[in-house]
Amino acid sequence: MLKQHTVAIVGLGLIGASLAHALAAGHNAPQLLGYDASANVRTRAAAVLPLTVVESLANLAQASVIILCVPVGAMASVMQQLQPFVAPHCIITDVGSVKQSVIADVLPHVPPHAIFVPAHPVAGTEKSGPEAGFATLFVGRKVLLTPLDNTPPAAIELMTALWQHCGAEVENMDAARHDAVFALVSHLPHLMAFCMVGTAVHVESVQQNEVIRYSASGFRDFTRLASSDPIMWRDIFLNNSTAVVEMLGRFTEELSALQRLIRNGEGAALEQYFAANRHVRQGIIDAGQG
Amino acid sequence: MLKQHTVAIVGLGLIGASLAHALAAGHNAPQLLGYDASANVRTRAAAVLPLTVVESLANLAQASVIILCVPVGAMASVMQQLQPFVAPHCIITDVGSVKQSVIADVLPHVPPHAIFVPAHPVAGTEKSGPEAGFATLFVGRKVLLTPLDNTPPAAIELMTALWQHCGAEVENMDAARHDAVFALVSHLPHLMAFCMVGTAVHVESVQQNEVIRYSASGFRDFTRLASSDPIMWRDIFLNNSTAVVEMLGRFTEELSALQRLIRNGEGAALEQYFAANRHVRQGIIDAGQG
Repeated sequence: MLKQHTVAIVGLGLIGASLAHALAAGHNAPQLLGYDASANVRTRAAAVLPLTVVESLANLAQASVIILCVPVGAMASVMQQLQPFVAPHCIITDVGSVKQSVIADVLPHVPPHAIFVPAHPVAGTEKSGPEAGFATLFVGRKVLLTPLDNTPPAAIELMTALWQHCGAEVENMDAARHDAVFALVSHLPHLMAFCMVGTAVHVESVQQNEVIRYSASGFRDFTRLASSDPIMWRDIFLNNSTAVVEMLGRFTEELSALQRLIRNGEGAALEQYFAANRHVRQGIIDAGQG
Repeated sequence: MLKQHTVAIVGLGLIGASLAHALAAGHNAPQLLGYDASANVRTRAAAVLPLTVVESLANLAQASVIILCVPVGAMASVMQQLQPFVAPHCIITDVGSVKQSVIADVLPHVPPHAIFVPAHPVAGTEKSGPEAGFATLFVGRKVLLTPLDNTPPAAIELMTALWQHCGAEVENMDAARHDAVFALVSHLPHLMAFCMVGTAVHVESVQQNEVIRYSASGFRDFTRLASSDPIMWRDIFLNNSTAVVEMLGRFTEELSALQRLIRNGEGAALEQYFAANRHVRQGIIDAGQG
């Protein structure tokens, strides 16, 4: 039963705050503690989140579950600081969008009497901070657990129950496969969005107010992704760089081929390319991810 | 007064059908005729659109306004066939997303007793066909007129009134500038979307059901644009290829720079790049285009 647990959320940004709202709901809600390295964020979180904000990682010794909701690049340092205060049998989990690097960063600092269950909730918005959190962020969304070979089944079951309490659909996946899949479906699209917006801002011959005024013609669809948290995305690209650069190579090969078709006026090939993949959108709608 | 006119819509796809619905509304509605080269589309249009479907371009001789709603690549041929039936003082306009090529294709076939006012409504959805049309497609959207040097002001005023009747905001713009701006804000984003979806489908190491299942993590935002009409987009890229290839060069330079930052692990530069352009999204929301 989740309500028998004390769950500590470390990092009170969009994901941590949404977890607080989601976990606090219902008759099976656990006790909730929260911590953030920023005193300013702690004060704001105390005002808007349904949890007890503590002033130090040392105050988390009573937690039976600790969820690391910090950027991927901060995981190693946070786990190192947290290590002395982890209770016996505590389950430590995370919400990082890259899994192999988080496992490599966190696992060495997890005490032998605790259990690490890496996780990635496939959810988010372009907003940041404790005020951006909301209870339904995870409803109907996927959460991927990437357990280690020796992870006890009971710990996986508890993490599954925790995320199901938030309305998510939980799946298990191999960490290396996770990183390859998300390099393609998430990291590469975000990179394209950042690059598209950067290009638009840097073209001197077109004014920025024109980009904004006529954005409904296509550009706008890229700007939501490109306004996501810069530190989170810096860390994702640094920590999944091999898979991202590999997928980027595929993309630029494909783009060069399209550019050649346009330059040479090969209309039939262009039309065939554009028509070939229309079914993908329908597949997304059919799968309830639209 | 618009109601004194007979407006003929040539091409009864998404845009033509939406124009029919929008023009037919209100006490100032004109008489409406419609034609499509496809007998199948004519039959479907007659069932769902508030206009009189005619069987031949020869039946449009009574029209005082003719709106060409065909793909950019079909403009020349349609105007050539239409030429013998254009009434004196008739205003011919279009809805093409490229303006210089449409002017070059259409103008030679416009009889001297008629007037051509090129136009581009910045509106659309990923859907196609007469059933996809709806009356509010143009509400709050921009419509750009790119008049020629000798276009009579009265013709520009009538076209402005026609689009305002549909709820649009009308602006005038130079045709060459239009094509450069839309290469950046519309054509390039669509090309990226087509290429992103094409890449995802072609990566053998990731299964297509994984792409669809986890699309909410970023990929999904690209799929709406990539499911737009293939023939329309083939024609846009063929007819604005110089500007598109120029903008594409800018994009790939920018992308190469980002790829180098990722490969070299230059976190500070990545974070700075991602943070620099977040204001663009806010600008779009502030401008009511969000």
